[in-house]
Amino acid sequence: MHIAFDADDTLWHNESIFSLTQRKVTELLADYAPSEGMEARLLETERRNLALFGYGVKGFTLSMIETALDVSNDTLPPHVVRRILEAGKAMIEHPVELLPGVAEVVTALAAEHSLMVITKGDLFDQESKIARSGLGELFSRVEIVSEKDVDTYRRVLARHDIAPERFVMVGNSVKSDILPVLALGGNAVHVPYATTWALEHVEHRGAAEEGFWAIETMSQLPVVLEQIAAQGWNAPATRR
Amino acid sequence: MHIAFDADDTLWHNESIFSLTQRKVTELLADYAPSEGMEARLLETERRNLALFGYGVKGFTLSMIETALDVSNDTLPPHVVRRILEAGKAMIEHPVELLPGVAEVVTALAAEHSLMVITKGDLFDQESKIARSGLGELFSRVEIVSEKDVDTYRRVLARHDIAPERFVMVGNSVKSDILPVLALGGNAVHVPYATTWALEHVEHRGAAEEGFWAIETMSQLPVVLEQIAAQGWNAPATRR
Repeated sequence: MHIAFDADDTLWHNESIFSLTQRKVTELLADYAPSEGMEARLLETERRNLALFGYGVKGFTLSMIETALDVSNDTLPPHVVRRILEAGKAMIEHPVELLPGVAEVVTALAAEHSLMVITKGDLFDQESKIARSGLGELFSRVEIVSEKDVDTYRRVLARHDIAPERFVMVGNSVKSDILPVLALGGNAVHVPYATTWALEHVEHRGAAEEGFWAIETMSQLPVVLEQIAAQGWNAPATRR
Repeated sequence: MHIAFDADDTLWHNESIFSLTQRKVTELLADYAPSEGMEARLLETERRNLALFGYGVKGFTLSMIETALDVSNDTLPPHVVRRILEAGKAMIEHPVELLPGVAEVVTALAAEHSLMVITKGDLFDQESKIARSGLGELFSRVEIVSEKDVDTYRRVLARHDIAPERFVMVGNSVKSDILPVLALGGNAVHVPYATTWALEHVEHRGAAEEGFWAIETMSQLPVVLEQIAAQGWNAPATRR
């Protein structure tokens, strides 16, 4: 049984740290630009820069600086630029806070299964977070990728010689963790996080699809895995 | 025969683009800070931030902004911050310029051998450069890593089931491409680049070591590979 976990917002808090930083920077800019629409402006900058920067805190920090220059019409005082730089560094240094149930569930599953992490984002930052999470030793493979689409999963499964129907992906993002895995004929368990980054948002196709499972918290994962196993996984025979 | 290439400054120009940008930013700052010592200040910032940012253009851009704030005592005008941001983006968008002989040699070798790229740096940026280089299809494996030390090479070779004595690493950095590979009992071919980033500089131990080869340009690689093969590689029998 091959179980793979997304990292950010599945194993530990991440989006909440971005949101907090965004609020902090919006406050910093209160004297130079209206707070309304700041979030939309930042998102617009991030979207524009995604093809250049990819995912991660460093690109986010550069996009925050760019947005601050934009909204202040290049009147931004240098000390505010410095504060934004410091806010970006604080994100990178932020302690890794595991989500409820994660430590127990991952520890228990690692005793019986081969566990992977499949995460996108900044290579350096993600490696650092996995190391600091204290969970590193429990994962036999860590794949840090630049995008999580059908091609990526196909490549990763092929590299490790894993049949999709014997593969379960566990994650919070319908777009990155669920849909591409289902498209390959794999199994996917959705564990929602409190907030979803707008660029990760897609319309939910509902829970009717074969291979798709939804839980509320990580503690429910072992029960769902038992159900998946009892059904013979997402074996071809069980798929329409 | 397993041949792996470093990417930046081995397959294509990289350090020259960093140096050029650094000169451009030094000129931008001429009105706010003395040009002397700028390079040393930037290097100091990069060194301090390395544990947070890792390698790559995004971290370099953040370090340039930080250095500019530092040397101007926080008097930096916003339009200069914007110019530095733009300089960073221009680096990411810079065309990939292959080094002399690379296209011919890599194409010829790919017909007979399994070729890899092992490079450190920003995941997203490196993938983009490999794709834009036009060489992507010639490499059967691409490993983008956060650091290139003995442990990294041991892990990569183990993952691909490659014996060190059957492995040749080709690269411009003595610190990252040569010494760790020799330490594992592998073969390493040094192709110097015009300039070496100060944080990559180590004292050269000379060419006396078994398994170590030095060439002037990539075009000489096929001849050296034949010599290595004729000697039975860096087989245990040929090592002291």
